[in-house]
Amino acid sequence: MEPFALALDLATGRLAPHTSSIVRRVSDMRGMYADGEAERQLASGGDPVVYEVLQYDVPTESGQLVCCTTVIHAGLVGDEYFMTKGHFHEKRETGEVYLGLAGRGYLLLFVDDRAAELEMGPGTLAYVPPYWAHRTLNVGDEPFTFLGVYPADAGHDYGTIEKAGFPRRVVREGSGPVVVQASGEATGAVG
Amino acid sequence: MEPFALALDLATGRLAPHTSSIVRRVSDMRGMYADGEAERQLASGGDPVVYEVLQYDVPTESGQLVCCTTVIHAGLVGDEYFMTKGHFHEKRETGEVYLGLAGRGYLLLFVDDRAAELEMGPGTLAYVPPYWAHRTLNVGDEPFTFLGVYPADAGHDYGTIEKAGFPRRVVREGSGPVVVQASGEATGAVG
Repeated sequence: MEPFALALDLATGRLAPHTSSIVRRVSDMRGMYADGEAERQLASGGDPVVYEVLQYDVPTESGQLVCCTTVIHAGLVGDEYFMTKGHFHEKRETGEVYLGLAGRGYLLLFVDDRAAELEMGPGTLAYVPPYWAHRTLNVGDEPFTFLGVYPADAGHDYGTIEKAGFPRRVVREGSGPVVVQASGEATGAVG
Repeated sequence: MEPFALALDLATGRLAPHTSSIVRRVSDMRGMYADGEAERQLASGGDPVVYEVLQYDVPTESGQLVCCTTVIHAGLVGDEYFMTKGHFHEKRETGEVYLGLAGRGYLLLFVDDRAAELEMGPGTLAYVPPYWAHRTLNVGDEPFTFLGVYPADAGHDYGTIEKAGFPRRVVREGSGPVVVQASGEATGAVG
C-alpha cells in the first residue's frame, strides 16, 4: 500500500478525494427522534438532509486507520437537534478521535449505565474511548463539521442504538441546548 | 476509561492539556543531517530547538488512539531543512494519520527499497500506511504544525533510522525545496 494525501477543507469538512459517502435524511432515521409527529411531518415534507459523511477507505485490517468527515446540518426535529444515528463499534475495544472543524456541536456517549457528553467546536479534539457508543449533533445555526479517525477494523453496529436508543438527548430551550434524559427530564449535567 | 476533550489551537498546534512532550534541539540529532560541520556549529552555538511534540497519552492497548501535535520550527542545517528524527513503528503493521494545520512541510516515507514524499500544508490529510518509516520537515518560513493520530500500541523505533538514515533528503535550492537522494543527487520526483 502506497502513502497518499487528501485535501481536507478545514472550514467545510469537504474531503477530496473520498471513496465512500453517506447521506442521511430525516426519513432514514425513523423512530430516533423523541417527537415522532414532527419526524413524520419533516420526512413527508421536504425530507431534509440531516448529515453527510465523506470517507476515504483503506483495507479493513488491524493497524490501518480510516479518515472521514461529517457535516451535520443545522435543524430541529421538534425541539431536538439534528443528530447522527450513533453507533457502537462492532469491535468494541476500538476508540475514535474527533476533531471539530467548524460550527458547534455535542458528542453524546454511553456505555452500560454510564453516559457522558462533550461540547465540540473548532479545535475540540474529543476522544471516544473503546466500548463507548457515540452520537454527534449540531446545536448551532451553521453546519457542524468534524474529522473522525478510527481503526479500519472497528466496524459499525447501528442496530443496538436503533433498538435501544441513547440514554440522553439534547434539546433546544429558550437559552440554548439542554441535555435531558431520554425520558425527558433535564440532567443538569451540561447547561 | 472516560471520554475527554482537548483543545487544539488549529493555528499553532498547541494542545491543552497534554501529558507528555518532546523537545529536540540540533544537538539531539547528531549525525542526522548531511552537513556535519553545519550541525556541529549550530549545536555548539545557540543549539536551536528543531521541533516540539505535545501528546496526550492513553493506555498502550490495541484499539486505543494517541493524539499528538508537532511543531517544526523554520530553519536549516546547511542547506537541509529542519526535520524530525523519523521512525518506524515498533509494531510495523500500524499506520498513522497526519493533518497539516499551519505552515508548509514535507512528509518523507520509505519501506524496503521504496521511497515517497508528500507535500503538506493546512488541510493536508496524509496517510502513513503500515510498515512505512516517516519523517516530516519544514520547508517554509513559519512554524510547520500538524496533528498526528496513531494506534496507542504502535511504539517508536528510532534506532533503525539513527543507523541507516532516510534514502531521501529535502534541501533548499534557489527556487525552494528539492528532494535529493541521500547521496546528494536530485530525484526529480518532487520539485
